[in-house]
Amino acid sequence: MAQQHLDPPTGSVAGTAPRASAPLDEGGAPIGDALAGYLRAQATEFLRSLRQHRETGGAAGGGGESGDAARSLRRSARRISGSLHTFRPLLDADWSERMRPELAWLSGTLAREHAYSARLERLLGALNRLSGTVGLPGQGTAGPPKPGGLTVGAAKAGALLDRQLTLARTRAHSAALQALGSSRFHAVADSVAVLASEVPLAPAAGTADLRPLAAAAQDRLADAVTALPLVVAGRPYNAEALVHGLSADTAAQPQDTSWHQVRLLLRLHRYAGEVLYPGECPVDARLLGAGKALNRHRDAAEAAVAAASAARTPRIAPATAYALGVLHADQRHEVEAARFAFQQAWQKEAVRTP
Amino acid sequence: MAQQHLDPPTGSVAGTAPRASAPLDEGGAPIGDALAGYLRAQATEFLRSLRQHRETGGAAGGGGESGDAARSLRRSARRISGSLHTFRPLLDADWSERMRPELAWLSGTLAREHAYSARLERLLGALNRLSGTVGLPGQGTAGPPKPGGLTVGAAKAGALLDRQLTLARTRAHSAALQALGSSRFHAVADSVAVLASEVPLAPAAGTADLRPLAAAAQDRLADAVTALPLVVAGRPYNAEALVHGLSADTAAQPQDTSWHQVRLLLRLHRYAGEVLYPGECPVDARLLGAGKALNRHRDAAEAAVAAASAARTPRIAPATAYALGVLHADQRHEVEAARFAFQQAWQKEAVRTP
Repeated sequence: MAQQHLDPPTGSVAGTAPRASAPLDEGGAPIGDALAGYLRAQATEFLRSLRQHRETGGAAGGGGESGDAARSLRRSARRISGSLHTFRPLLDADWSERMRPELAWLSGTLAREHAYSARLERLLGALNRLSGTVGLPGQGTAGPPKPGGLTVGAAKAGALLDRQLTLARTRAHSAALQALGSSRFHAVADSVAVLASEVPLAPAAGTADLRPLAAAAQDRLADAVTALPLVVAGRPYNAEALVHGLSADTAAQPQDTSWHQVRLLLRLHRYAGEVLYPGECPVDARLLGAGKALNRHRDAAEAAVAAASAARTPRIAPATAYALGVLHADQRHEVEAARFAFQQAWQKEAVRTP
Repeated sequence: MAQQHLDPPTGSVAGTAPRASAPLDEGGAPIGDALAGYLRAQATEFLRSLRQHRETGGAAGGGGESGDAARSLRRSARRISGSLHTFRPLLDADWSERMRPELAWLSGTLAREHAYSARLERLLGALNRLSGTVGLPGQGTAGPPKPGGLTVGAAKAGALLDRQLTLARTRAHSAALQALGSSRFHAVADSVAVLASEVPLAPAAGTADLRPLAAAAQDRLADAVTALPLVVAGRPYNAEALVHGLSADTAAQPQDTSWHQVRLLLRLHRYAGEVLYPGECPVDARLLGAGKALNRHRDAAEAAVAAASAARTPRIAPATAYALGVLHADQRHEVEAARFAFQQAWQKEAVRTP
């Protein structure tokens, strides 16, 4: 089973041919030069996004062209960093070790603004849903939000979250702009510019088989998934995610950590696939479904923390606190729902390709 | 399909023979005399429980022998009332119409004390679960509650609910004692005493086939189930039950009504089965599972209302209100989980016996 995603796809979507193909050795295995090509392409994309971001002025709010550019910048930074990690033995060790934390710092800094904005949107959406002012998706009761349908508590909770998360987003925006003007960033950008033309492969790495390292990344993912409580997650309404919903420690929940870890390992596995089979369309429904579930898991977990943390604001009205309590529990149930969705997505393929 | 529960069981549990059998006509159909026998037996049971309740003094708290007697009294009152309803055309109309509301009043009055006590237990149990002070059942983490593990908010919410529901229970206990001493109750008890020896069947009802009326009760159940949103309920984590979790009207939710109605119709169907096949063990797993799910649905819905209503107590601390919000959402998710469980139980048999 560990090999299934490492072999080239036997049938692509509707018979379309791969759009590109990686350098192969005589036996048909993807080799180090494919990694170099991938890194060059991602570095080029990074520089293009950076140029675009500067031209659009990096407007606050995370939307529009500037938001697209920032997203694309993060996207290539993550892919470069992930590939350096997975294929570490094939790259110049010193250079690789210097580069990775810098890329992580950059994509982390750039991600924050968008995250706050998405979190606010998620929480306000949930408040409206919980107030019955919007229909649930796909149930024929959808309609435009009815203004004025919120209770005093829900409206005040929304205003409080809006205030807190907008402030956090504004600060993240300033921090991102500051980062992009810093000498630390310029050093990263210079390194990426070098990478775009000259990938520092280790000696003889250009002809090395990439598959063992990609397989190791997949094994790390498989091991981490095996350690997840998937039997519990597969039983709907297991009430596991809210088990510490009222415990004294309302910071990030320890039970979430292993799921977040799988999310990162799944991403590394996906990037390794992009390196090995660059022309392949992202057709693996299992990975896509599992990845989406884990993103939802992360988003809901962070939104639940934001609701709990807003409830600790001094001098709020009981009705506001009550609404935030309902909202926190709702988001923790989203966490549980996301785990169920992951279990279903993961299980599905395991049955189909034994 | 409508007939499946009306035919005698082809195979009982492990080959055990029915403990009793109902009067049948020449073609083997249960007849009106079976109804008379059932009503006499229930009336006798009612009188026995009443005697036991008086002897044990009707102590408050709903526990012990007195609680058993009250439960047994309600149990037979419900069965008499349900049978009068289902088999109305076979009974003296005037008598039947007089009797039913009186039995409903009695079992309602007697049920309240137990309901408040069970609701408090459910809510305090949930508060402990949500505080991570007890393990979830069946997950190997169960253990004794750890005292002092509650947050201030959860502890205060628990104390508030304890105060409010204990007061309500005490009042319900007094009301029940008062009811049992009232002339209205003595009139009911007299009627039941008459019923224990002489069932007022309509002319020629003694030999009438009971099955058409039992089938009609089953059809009413089937129709009500068909009207339930079972497709939505069968999709785990559909987020439907909490859709009005924060709406201005926090009284009983209209979306619950049709489920409560099915619960009552399921009970009538079950009692009709007891009349027709008195010796049959209660082996129909589908009906048992579905009935349990609907009881859980009702209990969770009422507990959610109690949490929301406690949150409207004036001058509570925000932390208390927050905990009550989490608790309300938790119980509404229990409502959703119960609907899912009902859908699963109902679906199961429908597949097994097409």
